[in-house]
Amino acid sequence: MIELQGIAAASGYAMGPAFILQDTQAEIIRRTLPPEETELEIKRLESTVDQSIAELEELKAWTEETIDEEHAKIFATHILVLQDEEYIGRAKEMIQNGRINAEAALNDATEEIVALFESMDNEYLRERAADIRDVSKRMMKHLLGLEADGLDQVKDPVVLLANDLTPSDTAQLDREKIAGFATNIGGHTSHSAIMARSMEIPAVVGLNEVTSKVKPGDYVILDGAKGTLLINPPESVIASYQVLQQQYNACMQELKKFHDQPSVTADGHLLEIVSNVGNPQDAYAAKRSGAEGIGLYRTEFLYMGCESLPSEEVQFDAYKVVAEIFGSTAPVVIRTLDIGGDKELPYMDLPKEANPFLGYRAIRLCLDRKDIFKTQLRAILRASAFGNIKLMYPMIATMQELREANSILAEAKQELDKENIPYNREMEVGMMIEVPSAALIADILIQEVDFFSIGTNDLVQYTMAADRMNERVSYLSEPLNPAILRLIRNVIHAAHQHGKWVGMCGEMAGNLTAIPILVGLGLDEFSMSTGSILSARALMSKLNRAEMQALAEEALNMTSAEEIKQYVNNKVPAVAELTL
Amino acid sequence: MIELQGIAAASGYAMGPAFILQDTQAEIIRRTLPPEETELEIKRLESTVDQSIAELEELKAWTEETIDEEHAKIFATHILVLQDEEYIGRAKEMIQNGRINAEAALNDATEEIVALFESMDNEYLRERAADIRDVSKRMMKHLLGLEADGLDQVKDPVVLLANDLTPSDTAQLDREKIAGFATNIGGHTSHSAIMARSMEIPAVVGLNEVTSKVKPGDYVILDGAKGTLLINPPESVIASYQVLQQQYNACMQELKKFHDQPSVTADGHLLEIVSNVGNPQDAYAAKRSGAEGIGLYRTEFLYMGCESLPSEEVQFDAYKVVAEIFGSTAPVVIRTLDIGGDKELPYMDLPKEANPFLGYRAIRLCLDRKDIFKTQLRAILRASAFGNIKLMYPMIATMQELREANSILAEAKQELDKENIPYNREMEVGMMIEVPSAALIADILIQEVDFFSIGTNDLVQYTMAADRMNERVSYLSEPLNPAILRLIRNVIHAAHQHGKWVGMCGEMAGNLTAIPILVGLGLDEFSMSTGSILSARALMSKLNRAEMQALAEEALNMTSAEEIKQYVNNKVPAVAELTL
Repeated sequence: MIELQGIAAASGYAMGPAFILQDTQAEIIRRTLPPEETELEIKRLESTVDQSIAELEELKAWTEETIDEEHAKIFATHILVLQDEEYIGRAKEMIQNGRINAEAALNDATEEIVALFESMDNEYLRERAADIRDVSKRMMKHLLGLEADGLDQVKDPVVLLANDLTPSDTAQLDREKIAGFATNIGGHTSHSAIMARSMEIPAVVGLNEVTSKVKPGDYVILDGAKGTLLINPPESVIASYQVLQQQYNACMQELKKFHDQPSVTADGHLLEIVSNVGNPQDAYAAKRSGAEGIGLYRTEFLYMGCESLPSEEVQFDAYKVVAEIFGSTAPVVIRTLDIGGDKELPYMDLPKEANPFLGYRAIRLCLDRKDIFKTQLRAILRASAFGNIKLMYPMIATMQELREANSILAEAKQELDKENIPYNREMEVGMMIEVPSAALIADILIQEVDFFSIGTNDLVQYTMAADRMNERVSYLSEPLNPAILRLIRNVIHAAHQHGKWVGMCGEMAGNLTAIPILVGLGLDEFSMSTGSILSARALMSKLNRAEMQALAEEALNMTSAEEIKQYVNNKVPAVAELTL
Repeated sequence: MIELQGIAAASGYAMGPAFILQDTQAEIIRRTLPPEETELEIKRLESTVDQSIAELEELKAWTEETIDEEHAKIFATHILVLQDEEYIGRAKEMIQNGRINAEAALNDATEEIVALFESMDNEYLRERAADIRDVSKRMMKHLLGLEADGLDQVKDPVVLLANDLTPSDTAQLDREKIAGFATNIGGHTSHSAIMARSMEIPAVVGLNEVTSKVKPGDYVILDGAKGTLLINPPESVIASYQVLQQQYNACMQELKKFHDQPSVTADGHLLEIVSNVGNPQDAYAAKRSGAEGIGLYRTEFLYMGCESLPSEEVQFDAYKVVAEIFGSTAPVVIRTLDIGGDKELPYMDLPKEANPFLGYRAIRLCLDRKDIFKTQLRAILRASAFGNIKLMYPMIATMQELREANSILAEAKQELDKENIPYNREMEVGMMIEVPSAALIADILIQEVDFFSIGTNDLVQYTMAADRMNERVSYLSEPLNPAILRLIRNVIHAAHQHGKWVGMCGEMAGNLTAIPILVGLGLDEFSMSTGSILSARALMSKLNRAEMQALAEEALNMTSAEEIKQYVNNKVPAVAELTL
């Protein structure tokens, strides 16, 4: 048995014979046409265009429904390509003037326009070249009357192996025949990986030479959790994977019931499960995965993806899109810039620091660079007119910092008022609790914010004085340490005393062992990665909050995270049952 | 007016005409003796040796009394040099056989032996060369009948300027004539600086070319607080320095009364003022400055001063010396190795880290390198038989770490038992509170230690998530932040509930504005640098603990360090009065 390690792209298990998808590079026969045939050949090309557009319209609708609008846009772009006279017009002209057949003309016109786009000094236009190739491939198959790829011959489900899958390829995969797929290239957030998760097709990407290492018909097992592909495994391994697959499928069936349910405990306390995102695409995925809103929109990716500071307009557009995805009531919490320290912005030329995690970052930098900060605040305020946006400051350590941030926000509001630009005057303003000092004076800080969101990744790092990226001290990066639980209790207690709500946007919020304690401590909002949403909601439905309060009280007085984990796992068997 | 910036060596102010000390390089007249004179010349040398030994005996006794045993040893060594037949015998031989006069023989013998020592590959022996030169200079003056340096002509006090001062020079300074001194070379811990502090002579060292920039008789002002020397200042500056000097002297007079007093509040609560030290020399200085013991012995300097890990014997000797300095009852708290992170040990080849302050250091390293740790624990245990030693672990973050450390300590005890090596079975074992998690679970940790010592420098750094060495975030390094005060309250409360004591060994313990709050919170032991001891003790004598409890309660609910400082300064005027 050979085991190949790739990147886990979509969870689940697939097993069966391998089917290797060959890149269709059919030979194009070039013919010179007698003059009377040119008209006919142009007609043939036009009908292929119509057929392709019809297919793409269907794919677009299906993708909008099943995947997200972001990916549906890919097919909208393909339709635009086919409607572009520069491209199809050029091919027709070649048939007319060059007296060549439609296949040759399409090929030549494609190469010409692709070469043009690829020579451009503009990333966006260069990427369009890939769209044109994808469209041309689709048309060429029709012109040549090629049956796509032999997949139609397949009867029993196979595991599909390919160099890469375009969005078209992926969207058209037949769930009945394709048990899973594995590709040579790609990453966790490549189009095919995102689409596989939406389509619930187990997938592993980035396997390098999988298409050459596996022979057609080899029996393979694809492990979408570990990101591995096993080639010709022995019977015993197959048997154990069959058991895993059954458990997985049963659990997924169960979890799906929770997709459109509210997040509510067994004794009827309503909670909120939202998601952490970094861009509009993530927001689509979050909504699709059952998130009730966004608990943390990390705006730094917007800054890291540009070659200079993003303008107010660019930011406004990005925030507005995410707000609109979630409509007018579901909350979208936008965190202001958390850059500096380990997250570098080359164009800002920040100084190297001896301890970047304890350095000049996030709100510290923003209060110092008021120009950058106010631009962002204006963009967020403007977007707040288009959905239920809440604003949140990162890394606040003292009341002075909070007051300074709030006063810059007040200035931004005044400016917008003067300019008659609308924004939501009732927009909630909160802060992250990730610096221990903030957790310790939560009762003071809550008086000047509307909510808290506990960022456990940093809070744990600082409270334990252990860099979470440093393996030598990773044994200390443990959110279930009683010290952390006590800080969380303190924060929630302080906010509730003032009638305000508390969320959590660190990894702990989606940790099944932590959830019973967090429910017991009274946490209101749980912001997690999309993959954890359904199991968290299922777990909550089995918890009795009054019981969890007693459980949390016990945990707070235990000596170690280990002891607490054991205790929770013993007291709440659902935790183990829901752990995939 | 010219202002020169040097290194502040001993506080206080001195003003007056400059007296520049020239290096005595009197010309030695070389004579060939008639045979009958050799006996006489040898006698002359011998009587000079006797005279010098008598002087040195006196200096040694005086230094033991006024400075410390460490410096007294310098003169003991000088006496040994004079008793060494290799050196003086060689000079006599030169008179006898070479038939040269005593001055020439002393000069030649000195050069010969100095050259020998300086060629040695041993730092200790190379340093002996300086002792020999110092001794030879002393004898040469007697042989030549030279009046030392013209200082005897001085009537009114002067400010002495010199290239450098040897311990002999410094010890023999006449306090009546020398208002202060300034040197070209030297640092804060050079012999002359340490001796100046003991002798209460204002001093600035490391002024580079002060002896060439000042002309004899120039009027100078030496500022021992700022480390500056002003040359020919205008009348107005002189007048304002006269005021400063009077205030300083009056305050010092007042403070001296507290030197041998216990540290006790106005309402009779006994506290303890101890000191932070890094080596035996510091320990002498601490005792001399009125410290009631050592609250933090930083053992890492022992490791940093070696070229490989110090053996158990080397460590035992160092710990025993410090214990003995403080006798059998005054406490000496030895902290186990706090190395790693920013404190590097080249011979250990520790990995570079992205955030060393959040990295592999102190107890984390020691629990991983049990060999290094156990060697140190054995040395400390053995030294505990010779004084009131207490042991303390740094950087404990969790109960697991504490238990692991305690179990290695138990192993070390068992080993010593087996080897029949004595140690104090009742030795107290404590831990530092410097990681926020430890402060938060103090009630749990206290059950397995005898005391806590709060390390505020690191505790502030982690609680505020701000590197205290990073200027861009230095505004957050503020121990009077209410978050820090609350952690301190929590720690003291937890320990007192279990009948145990709490000390503090960060800079905060000696901060006059912090002391009223710390007294109010119930802190038992204050460990500070020697310069703060008397003013801290004077301040405590004016505080009523019950009142301070109310003051601390108020402070804990204030919003900022600024607000708290103003409040304390208003409520406790003695803070401002005692701030020099």
